[in-house]
Amino acid sequence: MKKLIIASTSTVHGGTYLDYLLPTLENHFKDCREILFIPYARPGGISHEDYTANVRLAFAKINKTVRGLHEFENPIETIQKSQGIFTGGGNTFLLVTQLYQNNIMEILAQTVENGTPYLGSSAGSNITGLTMQTTNDMPIIYPPSFSTLGLIPFNLNPHYLDPDTNSKHMGETRETRIKEFHAFNTTPVLGLREGSWLEVTGDKITLKGSLTARLFRQNETPTELEPESDLSWIK
Amino acid sequence: MKKLIIASTSTVHGGTYLDYLLPTLENHFKDCREILFIPYARPGGISHEDYTANVRLAFAKINKTVRGLHEFENPIETIQKSQGIFTGGGNTFLLVTQLYQNNIMEILAQTVENGTPYLGSSAGSNITGLTMQTTNDMPIIYPPSFSTLGLIPFNLNPHYLDPDTNSKHMGETRETRIKEFHAFNTTPVLGLREGSWLEVTGDKITLKGSLTARLFRQNETPTELEPESDLSWIK
Repeated sequence: MKKLIIASTSTVHGGTYLDYLLPTLENHFKDCREILFIPYARPGGISHEDYTANVRLAFAKINKTVRGLHEFENPIETIQKSQGIFTGGGNTFLLVTQLYQNNIMEILAQTVENGTPYLGSSAGSNITGLTMQTTNDMPIIYPPSFSTLGLIPFNLNPHYLDPDTNSKHMGETRETRIKEFHAFNTTPVLGLREGSWLEVTGDKITLKGSLTARLFRQNETPTELEPESDLSWIK
Repeated sequence: MKKLIIASTSTVHGGTYLDYLLPTLENHFKDCREILFIPYARPGGISHEDYTANVRLAFAKINKTVRGLHEFENPIETIQKSQGIFTGGGNTFLLVTQLYQNNIMEILAQTVENGTPYLGSSAGSNITGLTMQTTNDMPIIYPPSFSTLGLIPFNLNPHYLDPDTNSKHMGETRETRIKEFHAFNTTPVLGLREGSWLEVTGDKITLKGSLTARLFRQNETPTELEPESDLSWIK
């Protein structure tokens, strides 16, 4: 049975890396001694090694060891044999490019479908949707496709940000960008605010954390969804 | 001789469409009766017709007529025969996709190289750089390539936004995103604030407007460039 934690962000304001999620992760990964970390999105170009070292520190607090996917010769086999998987944030274009270049986009989807517990944050959450087309990231590299894991039947906008009503900046707001996506695409988009996450258990999707999430659908007024609500109907 | 006005935004806070640029445009397009408008980026999915109508209203103030590229059977010939060209803002992924689909990316570059005066705003400015990889837009459509017109020897980040030091949002700042670009690319990036524009005359590039622009180069500390300074050395 599919088991995912899909987090808007790894770090909330004033907190440390993953700290707000650790109690949840302790339960989510309760049958895993070791977590396989996919460091491909590497924020700011941090090395795979350094990124994995940071993640190792966080998971040590719940007594899990961490190995980075880059440490292994055969990424396909490594994913298939893993006990639990975490894909960290960074740049979604880079992450998706690397998943395709290593031929693991499909195998990662299959492995998680088959029940290996998965954690995503930010870019690592973005890829659980149907496409990466509602990322906030800069296109720093050209991926072979925008299609992603499709582990949930809609798209995500992590780090969802409400419009700043005091701003004099004329660039598009996040909501405007998502509406632009819906001028050309029908896929629903869930704006997941920082500190929120989705808990996926089989076909059941639940909004967790203390904040509402904003649901955008083509040709409809966006709506706010309450914490603990069942989102399994969104498709 | 190449003649371009490359604007960060079409509209400054409190202003109307293109109004702050009209005196500049009156001179820039002084030998044109009619402007060819490329509406492909169509912000928020506005129709080509409606977008062109808005542009027509603005240019009527300086006695120019406007026709939209979508009104013509043969876009290649239309671009080659045009007196002056304006590419409006909106979504850069959409704009670039449409330029490639209509086989006019190269012909547009050649035509402007040969001296047809060009105006770009926002997405229409982004494409004057080497690639669209420092756009702020959402990847709502998958373009055949990220390469763009290369009319200037660097990349732009229009609507450049300084970090909000009061923000509790943990998403990347604009500067962080551009640094991420430089983890993988050597092309210099000019952050052009709203109200600023570049004036290109042959090989000479001058920063116009009242604000400084922020220059990002790989492995270097960003620097602020003064209005009226010559940017021709950036490559």
